[in-house]
Amino acid sequence: MKVDILTLFPEMFEGVFNHSILKRATELGAFSYNLVNFREYTESKHNKVDDYPYGGGAGLVLSPQPIFDALEDVTKEKDKKPRVILMCPQGEPYTQQKAEELAKEEHLVFICGHYEGYDERIRQHLVTDEISIGDYVLTGGELGAMVVVDSVVRLLPSVLGNEDSAPNDSFSSGLLEHPHYTRPAEFRGMKVPDVLLSGNHAKIEEWRRQQSLRRTAERRKDLLEQYPLTDQDKAWLNQWRDDHNLS
Amino acid sequence: MKVDILTLFPEMFEGVFNHSILKRATELGAFSYNLVNFREYTESKHNKVDDYPYGGGAGLVLSPQPIFDALEDVTKEKDKKPRVILMCPQGEPYTQQKAEELAKEEHLVFICGHYEGYDERIRQHLVTDEISIGDYVLTGGELGAMVVVDSVVRLLPSVLGNEDSAPNDSFSSGLLEHPHYTRPAEFRGMKVPDVLLSGNHAKIEEWRRQQSLRRTAERRKDLLEQYPLTDQDKAWLNQWRDDHNLS
Repeated sequence: MKVDILTLFPEMFEGVFNHSILKRATELGAFSYNLVNFREYTESKHNKVDDYPYGGGAGLVLSPQPIFDALEDVTKEKDKKPRVILMCPQGEPYTQQKAEELAKEEHLVFICGHYEGYDERIRQHLVTDEISIGDYVLTGGELGAMVVVDSVVRLLPSVLGNEDSAPNDSFSSGLLEHPHYTRPAEFRGMKVPDVLLSGNHAKIEEWRRQQSLRRTAERRKDLLEQYPLTDQDKAWLNQWRDDHNLS
Repeated sequence: MKVDILTLFPEMFEGVFNHSILKRATELGAFSYNLVNFREYTESKHNKVDDYPYGGGAGLVLSPQPIFDALEDVTKEKDKKPRVILMCPQGEPYTQQKAEELAKEEHLVFICGHYEGYDERIRQHLVTDEISIGDYVLTGGELGAMVVVDSVVRLLPSVLGNEDSAPNDSFSSGLLEHPHYTRPAEFRGMKVPDVLLSGNHAKIEEWRRQQSLRRTAERRKDLLEQYPLTDQDKAWLNQWRDDHNLS
């Protein structure tokens, strides 16, 4: 997968792109990236990339010209049009399903604003996907682009070794993960639940399923409502709610 | 604000923490940070920080000892207990409201796992907040910690200059932002809407409000449902739905 990132702060990406999974994916040849400072494309005399908004108001707005020209440059020798992703608070909320969809692409381009808004013509004429990583305000699109790249690249074939896969994949199952414990069995007086030391695998699986259901019920009712519960799951959840006087 | 980050990949933070807003906040003295590689605290002979899960299963689990000891070390000379934040998919979904809450704290500690799960005793006995930045799987907690730090530090007094504030603050108003345009009035045949060039400020405000309502209705019905619409907003939205045969 090839990724181009249009940004005014290419140095922000170094730490994340040169370590851990993205480093490994680069070494494996599964992933390559190109950081493009779109200020280099501006035709403005003073190297400006933004300007005041028409109609007045606070803040600045990214001008169309540098971004149109930078995008043309990174796509000029490609046969196929890439997905062009704008990171912005108005975008569709990012999900694991979207990560899986993007992982099938050969070429992604990210446009990252910083502080400013985007001239609407960029959205309308260049962008194929507007993505928001969550309902909070960040200084720029760079961290969002890193989040999307990390979540997508780890899904590419052969990037994750077996040892790295589970147990973090909460959103693949649709339920939150059950608790994990490792050695020692007692640490500063805090003990591992007996069932996990029992060697009874059927009991362990049952405990884990119940903990997973309970945690999801306690923390993320929205996920539980979408989840296809079995009759046994429902019976167990009802029992648990009765025991704890929950509705 | 002081931030301690417990991580196995401290180098990942360099690009983000040494540029843009976090650099400025550091120079202003509003923010300082300390990256702690908790591998340095392990008592394991082979420098291990993780181990197999009790009860079996794929993946590794972070051991309690290195994290308990690292946390004790970074808090030992503090009078007040810090907020201790675990970045994990099982955490509460991060919001702008949470960012505002955390911005009032003097000291935050982040615990970032990487690939692995966390021994449950870490959650139960050290952690005050479990946070998830969204429903997607990342390789580790580091990017999540950067996202939270960026969103919190930009809220600290005097960190954001006036020129940087709007227009990105979609989640402060509860509606998505209206479109923005800047010069030129025509770019490659694409024109700025006439109303924005009209100089009629009442008309401009009305257009922006309507665009903001429309965009939120099209993209984020969940936000619109929570928003206290005025009678005028409702009338306008009904008109727009009728015009476009929407229910």
